[in-house]
Amino acid sequence: MSDLDRAQILGYLNRARALAKHAYCPYSNFHVGCVLVDHQGRIFEGCNVENASYSVTLCAERTAGSQAIAQGSRDWKAIYIVSPTGVSPCGTCRQFLFELAPDLVIYLSDLESSEFTGPIRIQDMLPMGMKLQQTKLPIPTPPET
Amino acid sequence: MSDLDRAQILGYLNRARALAKHAYCPYSNFHVGCVLVDHQGRIFEGCNVENASYSVTLCAERTAGSQAIAQGSRDWKAIYIVSPTGVSPCGTCRQFLFELAPDLVIYLSDLESSEFTGPIRIQDMLPMGMKLQQTKLPIPTPPET
Amino acid sequence: MSDLDRAQILGYLNRARALAKHAYCPYSNFHVGCVLVDHQGRIFEGCNVENASYSVTLCAERTAGSQAIAQGSRDWKAIYIVSPTGVSPCGTCRQFLFELAPDLVIYLSDLESSEFTGPIRIQDMLPMGMKLQQTKLPIPTPPET
Amino acid sequence: MSDLDRAQILGYLNRARALAKHAYCPYSNFHVGCVLVDHQGRIFEGCNVENASYSVTLCAERTAGSQAIAQGSRDWKAIYIVSPTGVSPCGTCRQFLFELAPDLVIYLSDLESSEFTGPIRIQDMLPMGMKLQQTKLPIPTPPET
Repeated sequence: MSDLDRAQILGYLNRARALAKHAYCPYSNFHVGCVLVDHQGRIFEGCNVENASYSVTLCAERTAGSQAIAQGSRDWKAIYIVSPTGVSPCGTCRQFLFELAPDLVIYLSDLESSEFTGPIRIQDMLPMGMKLQQTKLPIPTPPET
Repeated sequence: MSDLDRAQILGYLNRARALAKHAYCPYSNFHVGCVLVDHQGRIFEGCNVENASYSVTLCAERTAGSQAIAQGSRDWKAIYIVSPTGVSPCGTCRQFLFELAPDLVIYLSDLESSEFTGPIRIQDMLPMGMKLQQTKLPIPTPPET
Repeated sequence: MSDLDRAQILGYLNRARALAKHAYCPYSNFHVGCVLVDHQGRIFEGCNVENASYSVTLCAERTAGSQAIAQGSRDWKAIYIVSPTGVSPCGTCRQFLFELAPDLVIYLSDLESSEFTGPIRIQDMLPMGMKLQQTKLPIPTPPET
Repeated sequence: MSDLDRAQILGYLNRARALAKHAYCPYSNFHVGCVLVDHQGRIFEGCNVENASYSVTLCAERTAGSQAIAQGSRDWKAIYIVSPTGVSPCGTCRQFLFELAPDLVIYLSDLESSEFTGPIRIQDMLPMGMKLQQTKLPIPTPPET
């Protein structure tokens, strides 16, 4: 890994750390932030959003990924995720990311250090990944607004 | 409702219609788009994102709402939602929105008409709303990035 | 309400209290138990099951309801739910129950008292309930096993 | 694998096929059934339960697993899952099963054949599995009812 690559990774991780401060996590106090980057260099941001009914909770990865879809981006390159313990994505987020971008790579870090884990391919985190059918579909052009 | 108010509502609904075109919904082909507006006038956008494992699906409302949280907005005013049938939010989205903004009002429309339903308060869509505790928390200021 | 009816309700609520002790809730320590009864008098039991990834959590109501479906029951009459605060069902459970049994009635209580709230119809807890289409379907007879 | 072991596996898979017929899946028409067996030989049954709001869907594995918890079983040995394509568990179910029983083994088959895939350990299907903390907790004895 070149110094330039490493600097870029650290930059994205720092941006993810700023997002983690926005997390709505009064139940766990476990702040997660992430940055999703697509092949055009567009950046999408996420943090976790909890709920009194725990099952309604959204992870940071899905917050960022769903926003990318809303903005017309489906060609994802890498996701940078930070949390207090540098934990890897939960199974639900792996399923979510895998369907949209099986070649996506993941970088993990905590909220403070300059160490990180990655790149890890999402498809290697979901062996025998569940995929019912071919799901890569063209995006229609939205009308002028 | 003044003509000005009505024009503004129709404008947001049109923007939601553009977002519905970005929906990733190969399983249902049910395109939903929405626009969430906060009291500072900031706008957050969403569409639905489906998955081969249906339970991993995200609705448009949560895509927009989680992005608002990621961007530091928790003071929500109104959400404008469009879908093929002008359907009202599912119970999960009601739970999600209710916790963050019980006074939020909803406007519903379909993908084509200039008719709409609303305003409806989210708290009136979730009577005896489930709320374990006081959840309105201060947002810390993110560090400079 | 007759004394007999009241005694039966209290009996179901007590059974729900026993189930609440089985809840797997290391994150919230919020024990919920429930009993779902169908029109044939069959009884299905549930408790909440949490997960380190909060969004994977299942509520007691869905544990009981999904088991009813697995056992071939779709003709639900009443559900008896207990929790530390006697809280009403979350929006996700309302959506789940509403689709399968819009006429279902709910009884709520806490873990100790002999007071309860109900009956409340599920359809009154999800006004303008989201329903894409007619979903009441026949159940095929399973093969001999 | 002995003939006896094989016969037992086929027996459980057949039972899962009967459960798949109970699935409530009007949206996908993708019938899934499963049987979860614990170390005491107790058996818990599941099928998928869909919803007009796709995200409210429950997979067969979580239906069976949550019922096991409700019945006081946390010592799981194997799960037998059938579906039209013999598909492997989604990421959400992997997360759910992994937390409760990381040593659980999985057997997969379709709705008709006598072929199957397995055993596969759940921990091998969720590499770097997300686990915030030690979660194996004692089950309190329920009161007499």
